[in-house]
Amino acid sequence: MTPEEFRTAGHQLIDWIADYRTGLPDRPVQSTVKPGDVTGALPATPPTAPEDLAAVMRDLDEIIVPGLMQVQHPRHTGWFPSNASLASVLGDIASSGIGALGISWQSAPALTELEEVVCDWMRQLTGLSEGWRGVIQDTASTGCLVALLAARERAADYVSERGGLQSLEAPLTVYSSEHAHSATPKAALLAGFGRDNIRSIATDPATHALDPAALRAAIEKDVNEGRRPAAIVVSVGTTATTAVDPLAEIMQIAAGYGIWVHIDAAMAGSALLLPEYRWLVEGIEGFTTPDGFTVPPADSLGWNPHKWMGTILDTSLLYVREPERLIRVMSTNPSFLRNSGAVVATEYRDWGIPLGRRFRALKLWFHLRLDGVEAIRERLRRDLANAQRLARLVTAEPDWTVVAPVSLQTVCIRHTPSGPNGETLDGEALEQHTLAWADALNRSGVGTVTPAKLAGQWMVRISIGVESTEWSDVEAVWTAAKELAAQA
Amino acid sequence: MTPEEFRTAGHQLIDWIADYRTGLPDRPVQSTVKPGDVTGALPATPPTAPEDLAAVMRDLDEIIVPGLMQVQHPRHTGWFPSNASLASVLGDIASSGIGALGISWQSAPALTELEEVVCDWMRQLTGLSEGWRGVIQDTASTGCLVALLAARERAADYVSERGGLQSLEAPLTVYSSEHAHSATPKAALLAGFGRDNIRSIATDPATHALDPAALRAAIEKDVNEGRRPAAIVVSVGTTATTAVDPLAEIMQIAAGYGIWVHIDAAMAGSALLLPEYRWLVEGIEGFTTPDGFTVPPADSLGWNPHKWMGTILDTSLLYVREPERLIRVMSTNPSFLRNSGAVVATEYRDWGIPLGRRFRALKLWFHLRLDGVEAIRERLRRDLANAQRLARLVTAEPDWTVVAPVSLQTVCIRHTPSGPNGETLDGEALEQHTLAWADALNRSGVGTVTPAKLAGQWMVRISIGVESTEWSDVEAVWTAAKELAAQA
Ligand SMILES: Cc1ncc(COP(=O)(O)O)c(C=O)c1O
Ligand SMILES: Cc1ncc(COP(=O)(O)O)c(C=O)c1O
Repeated sequence: MTPEEFRTAGHQLIDWIADYRTGLPDRPVQSTVKPGDVTGALPATPPTAPEDLAAVMRDLDEIIVPGLMQVQHPRHTGWFPSNASLASVLGDIASSGIGALGISWQSAPALTELEEVVCDWMRQLTGLSEGWRGVIQDTASTGCLVALLAARERAADYVSERGGLQSLEAPLTVYSSEHAHSATPKAALLAGFGRDNIRSIATDPATHALDPAALRAAIEKDVNEGRRPAAIVVSVGTTATTAVDPLAEIMQIAAGYGIWVHIDAAMAGSALLLPEYRWLVEGIEGFTTPDGFTVPPADSLGWNPHKWMGTILDTSLLYVREPERLIRVMSTNPSFLRNSGAVVATEYRDWGIPLGRRFRALKLWFHLRLDGVEAIRERLRRDLANAQRLARLVTAEPDWTVVAPVSLQTVCIRHTPSGPNGETLDGEALEQHTLAWADALNRSGVGTVTPAKLAGQWMVRISIGVESTEWSDVEAVWTAAKELAAQA
Repeated sequence: MTPEEFRTAGHQLIDWIADYRTGLPDRPVQSTVKPGDVTGALPATPPTAPEDLAAVMRDLDEIIVPGLMQVQHPRHTGWFPSNASLASVLGDIASSGIGALGISWQSAPALTELEEVVCDWMRQLTGLSEGWRGVIQDTASTGCLVALLAARERAADYVSERGGLQSLEAPLTVYSSEHAHSATPKAALLAGFGRDNIRSIATDPATHALDPAALRAAIEKDVNEGRRPAAIVVSVGTTATTAVDPLAEIMQIAAGYGIWVHIDAAMAGSALLLPEYRWLVEGIEGFTTPDGFTVPPADSLGWNPHKWMGTILDTSLLYVREPERLIRVMSTNPSFLRNSGAVVATEYRDWGIPLGRRFRALKLWFHLRLDGVEAIRERLRRDLANAQRLARLVTAEPDWTVVAPVSLQTVCIRHTPSGPNGETLDGEALEQHTLAWADALNRSGVGTVTPAKLAGQWMVRISIGVESTEWSDVEAVWTAAKELAAQA
């Protein structure tokens, strides 16, 4: 395709995107396709002759878009928001159009340096000290794996340079709350720790945040039995309820054993843009306890601008205090990647798993410059207020409960109606009821909600925060929930 | 940003991209910036007020683009091609505009199913049997890590479900040629094998391909000493010289020990689109030896459409015979990711590391449909012919040698002039000379080439294959090389 053909096609596609985004509120949020429907609508064999854009765009309209959950829809309140703000989309388009290749500083100096600059802008905007250096990873899952690999090697005195994990005498252990995202145990398993050495720590039944006493007990038991604690993943904003683990207390425990502290704030990190929410990571810079004990800063912090803040996926920030801990574990230096001349520069390939890197910094750069951080902050505050407002309505409604503290923009609710004989629904019947009304709401196309288990029992999350979600949208989801729960 | 503001801005950006791509031949290929130049040109603190698109685009023109290696430039013959074909860019733009979220089948059914379909199209186009199932990873590095993790667990009987790698008695070992990409030892180190258990196998001095006898000896030694061979990474197209390890022979050795065979064809995989190049992976489907020994198919194959074929980064295909080997190692099933209803569908999150996935299949889909596979094949054949033609010119030129077989589109050369007293340059003086002319060529902006070490000595790679590279461009690079080597 020539640049002129691209010009023509690109203009059509931009109009298509603008129309698609404009028309979102009129679409069902959840797709009605069944497994295999999309596959069945597509040819089983590849095209042999080139087709024109019109044919491809027809398929976008008729097959692809109807086959998607519309996560940019104002009434999508499922999972967590996954905003793809149009300002950041422009940056992504610039990145695609340029087609840069990040494999060394020299392969794309501006790719590396703009990434350093925007990571530093984000550091400032979230109130972190100058001691933190950032890198863009694809996701929080990968960021967590990278942190655990660095933690593994630090704890094992860089044993990978010798016999590897399999040569260790004292097994390394990893800790996180029972509400940690599944990405945490996955990363620990991939890093080779083994399930027997991954501790799922109990949480406070009211706050659903990690219980520091339980953590301390687990660590002490491991140490007494000859194991070596390597890392703690602190959940700042759990996926089920946005519970916030008590970072400072955890850091104080970790400090006693030299344990790597990784903070998973995948969702809640966006709130750090708001000065009034910096308490979420209070202690992160380190502190001295009243009895004079010095607690060093946390080791790593990961969060996703591609969630609530809205810099399109895949934009996950990973901050570390000591980049050399990543570099020692992940650097490679083959002859063909040499920079010519005596270049001393950041080599981001050594801060993560992939060699080839896209120019992801453009997304953040466009987003921050075109929308401006104050507009983003205002939107976050709107969502926080909407969540409180929804929680008040739910609490005021008979048979409905808010089942977890609303610390951010996610409201966890349950409908507990009376059964046919006036008894309150419970047990398996309540479980079925909860899933039934949530699924009915999702099937209706009006809005989406996500059922999740809390203390072994289903509840339903309404997670506010899509860029276009106004109070009226939240209200529409809530109204539909009430109606469908009454019928379920 | 509203859809209407996006429409206006998007049209400007499309024009900017078309103009940028049109103007590429007039730009220097390699940027002249020094470390810190780009950073210095950008504000150290984030913007507080929103800016307009014109300001951002001015910075693109004045700071970003001049700070990049122009890898889409027709005279970029460095590293390997990293084509971002404009047809695939359109698919990437559609993906950004839609902003889908792949975290479960239900979160984006079309994202999952189109990925299955295009991976299967690519399977057919590269001549693989129906036994292979594909997934898109970001890079070959990640694909290799995923394969080694699956290999690790298969060899260790899924020890991660128990004590993990650190509980193993017999250490696991990993093999690859000394010319394997640095991504291979990196992946093995991250997977926890440890450097002591990673074998770098000698290569044939003429072909630079792995020597099967050396491989067999290494494996036997490990087994005799109580270690357990887990994986072999076969390089089909090494980075230095595009050498092709003898797959069938390696598979036969591996079969005797049940070793996982991963094929790294990051670059050369594109050539599998050409039926006449299927010999590159001969044996991949398994075979029976003359003496009746059954060799099963290889286990995994990774290659990058984002290199020579030209589906924009990040598009790396990973094919496996037994997806359940990936799933067993990488699956998670938290309550909040449940599909409603009795959905049986592919969950690609279990085929890789990240949870959240972009809609990458669109890039391949647009590329194949808009350009058509025959046009892509023609381009690959053009590049193969250009490489042979260049090799003939180099060979015919006094003092110049082609130092490795030209199996694909990369020509490895060395200039060995006579010294001041008529003696042939060698040793350190030759090393300096090689780097000097290569760096001079890169600095000139006329073209780019990549020095790399072969048998401990620098040579220079001219790697043809940018979408817009015609013979005249190759000739221009070669002419500049001759001139600058004469002056160096
Ligand atoms: C707390 C938390 N951590 C990690 C993740 C994983 O995110 P990613 O898709 O970026 O890997 C999520 C996703 O929702 C999350 O909520
Ligand atoms: C043979 C080979 N393997 C792996 C890689 C790594 O590629 P990626 O950037 O996709 O990780 C390369 C890159 O050039 C390569 O040539």
